[in-house]
Amino acid sequence: GSGERLGGATPKQFCAVQGRPLVSYTVRAMERISWISDIIVVVSPENIETMTSIIKKYGHKRVTIVKGGITRHRSIFNGLKVFTENEFSNRLLQKPEVVIIHDAVRPFVEEDILSKVVMAAKEHGAAGAIRPLVSTVIASAADGCLDHSLERARYRASEMPQAFLFDIIYEAYQQCTDYDLDYGTECLHLALKYCKTNAKLVEGTADLWKVTYKRDLYAAESIIKDNLSQQVCVITDVKEAVAQVGFLLHESLKSQIKVEAMSISLSKNDSHLQNIFSRQCYNFVCVNDKKYAIQETQQLVDTLEKSNIPLLYPVVLISVHLDISENISFGIGMEELARIKKFAREVKKKNILVYGLLIQYK
Amino acid sequence: GSGERLGGATPKQFCAVQGRPLVSYTVRAMERISWISDIIVVVSPENIETMTSIIKKYGHKRVTIVKGGITRHRSIFNGLKVFTENEFSNRLLQKPEVVIIHDAVRPFVEEDILSKVVMAAKEHGAAGAIRPLVSTVIASAADGCLDHSLERARYRASEMPQAFLFDIIYEAYQQCTDYDLDYGTECLHLALKYCKTNAKLVEGTADLWKVTYKRDLYAAESIIKDNLSQQVCVITDVKEAVAQVGFLLHESLKSQIKVEAMSISLSKNDSHLQNIFSRQCYNFVCVNDKKYAIQETQQLVDTLEKSNIPLLYPVVLISVHLDISENISFGIGMEELARIKKFAREVKKKNILVYGLLIQYK
Repeated sequence: GSGERLGGATPKQFCAVQGRPLVSYTVRAMERISWISDIIVVVSPENIETMTSIIKKYGHKRVTIVKGGITRHRSIFNGLKVFTENEFSNRLLQKPEVVIIHDAVRPFVEEDILSKVVMAAKEHGAAGAIRPLVSTVIASAADGCLDHSLERARYRASEMPQAFLFDIIYEAYQQCTDYDLDYGTECLHLALKYCKTNAKLVEGTADLWKVTYKRDLYAAESIIKDNLSQQVCVITDVKEAVAQVGFLLHESLKSQIKVEAMSISLSKNDSHLQNIFSRQCYNFVCVNDKKYAIQETQQLVDTLEKSNIPLLYPVVLISVHLDISENISFGIGMEELARIKKFAREVKKKNILVYGLLIQYK
Repeated sequence: GSGERLGGATPKQFCAVQGRPLVSYTVRAMERISWISDIIVVVSPENIETMTSIIKKYGHKRVTIVKGGITRHRSIFNGLKVFTENEFSNRLLQKPEVVIIHDAVRPFVEEDILSKVVMAAKEHGAAGAIRPLVSTVIASAADGCLDHSLERARYRASEMPQAFLFDIIYEAYQQCTDYDLDYGTECLHLALKYCKTNAKLVEGTADLWKVTYKRDLYAAESIIKDNLSQQVCVITDVKEAVAQVGFLLHESLKSQIKVEAMSISLSKNDSHLQNIFSRQCYNFVCVNDKKYAIQETQQLVDTLEKSNIPLLYPVVLISVHLDISENISFGIGMEELARIKKFAREVKKKNILVYGLLIQYK
C-alpha cells in the first residue's frame, strides 16, 4: 500500500506503533507460527532498504523480501514468482502446497484463522476470511445520486488472510489480463474467474481489521498496550531485607494481576526460568540490593532469546535496586545511566521493555 | 444500537471516552451548530434514564429524548413522529423543513458535511454522506463459498449524516412495510423506494467513521486527546517574582505551542478574556503566589460558561501556585486538597479539565 489514505508520507505499514513499525508486528504474527515455512514480504522498490533494516533490527527469521509492482495484484504475483523463477530472489524457495496472502497492515492475525483458511484452501482450492459489513453498500449513478443500495445481510466484506493451493493462484495470475493486474483488487475473484475455484469463505474475528486511517494506528497502539501480559514473576535476592520487599510487592500486586513469586536469585535457575516461560509468564520484576544489576536483566533477556519464544506483544522487565544501606547513599552516575539507557534501547528492538527503579529507604 | 459488536454489556454510545459518554460528544457536535434547532435523541426504553442524566450532567441544550423501537428504522420513525404526534413527547416541536439523521456513535461530525447534506437535501429531497469502500464486498452462495465479488470502484459505503426534506422521509416511513421496518437499514433506500427520490451522495471525510468495535473507542479517545487545542494563555499576577515566572514559562512554551501572554491579574479583565476566547484560545495557565487560588479558576470557568462557547474538545486550566516565601513552606492540607479535587470533578462534566500545581522554590 502507498499510505495515501493516512495523510502522511510514510506508507502505513512502516508507521511506528509503540516505537516499532507496523509491518514488524505482522511479520512477528506470522513467524511465531511454526508451520509457516517462508514469509515473503513484497515492498515497493523505494522501501526495500527500509524493510531490510527492519528485518535486521528486529531479528525476523524466514523472511524473503521481494520487489513489488505498481499495483496490488502485480505485487502479489511477484511474491508468488519467488517459488518458480530465479530473478526475484537469490535463492529459489521450495514451492509450497498452500500459500497464505496477507496484508502488512493487519498485524493482529491469530493462528486460528490462519489455520482455518489453510485447511479450507486444501479442500476447496481457495479460501478467504470475511466479516459482516459495517455500513450499507450503495451504487451511485453517473449524476452522483443513489442508484441502488445492497441488502446488507446478503453481502460480506472480504478480508485477509486468504489461502490458496499454490498451483491454483499461480495459474490464475498467469492467465489473467493486464486489466485485471492493473485494476483488480480481489485474489478470490481471480481464482474464480480463471480457475473456476469458488473460494470457501471463513468468518473471521474483529481483529482482522486493516490499518487504513490514522485513527487505526491509535487503535493498534491501544490494542498492543492492552495485550501486555497481565502476569508477572517477582524475583528477589535471598537476603532477608530484599526478600521481604519482594513478598510485600507480591502481596500488593496479586489483587490486580497474576503473580508468580520466586524468591531466589537467578544465577542457578535457568531451568526455573524455562518453567515460568512455559506458563506463558514473560514479565519480571527483579528486586536486588546491588548497585547496577544489569547482568541479571541481561541474563533474563538472553534466556528469553534462547528459548526462541516468538513474542507478539512486548515483555516488561523491571529491575528494582533497593538502597538499604544505613549511611552511604549510592545514587547513580551519568555514565552508568547512559549504559542502562543504551541497554534498554537495544533490547527494545527485541520487543522487550526494560525499566529500572532505584529505591532508597532508611 | 445495542452494542453487541463491542463485546460488552454497555451499548457503545454510552461507553466512556475520556470519562464522558460517547453520545455526549455527538450531541455536543450537533448543539454547537447554531442552525440546528432541535436535537432528538432516540434511545431504547431501558436507557432513557441514563440518557436523561447525561443531558443533565453535561448541560446539553435543545435535546428531546424519544423512546426507540426494536429496530433501527422503527427508532428513527419514532424520532420523526415527535414533529407530528403528541404521544412521544410532552411538547410538539415545530416541524422542520429538513431533518438530519445521524448515529450516536459518530462523534466527530463537522459542520461542513452537515451543511453539505442539508443543502443537497433541500435540492434533491434526500442526501447522504458516502465513503470509499475499505474492503472488497462479496456475495456468498448458500454453501458458504464465494458467489461473486463486486468491483470496488463502482460501490461506496453509505455513512451518516444523512438529510431529508421532512415530508419525504416521513412519507417514506408511513408508506413502508413492516418488513422494511424490521429488516431494512438504509434510510436512503426508503426515500428511493417509496418517494422516488434519488438521494444526492456527498463524499465525506474519514472522521465520519462509526464507533463499532472496542478498538474504535481507543481511536476515539486518541483523536480527542490529539485535538486538545494547541494554544494557551498564560496569566500571571502583577507581582514581579510571579510575572517573571510567567515570562519564563511563556519563553519555554512558545517553541511548542501558540502562547498568548497576558501579564495581568484576572479580576478586572472579563473583556480581555472575551478577546482571548474570540481568538479560539480556551486553555489557561494561571501563575500566582496565593495559597489556594481556586477563585481565579472559578472565574475562568464562569466566564467560559457565560460566553456559551460550545466546546467539543476539552479545555485545560492549570493553576500554578508559587511558594516563594523565604521561610514558611505552605504545603497543602487534606481538606483543601479535597475541595480542589471536588471542584475539578465538577467542572470536568463541563468538559473543562482543571489541574493544580504547587511549586516551592527558595
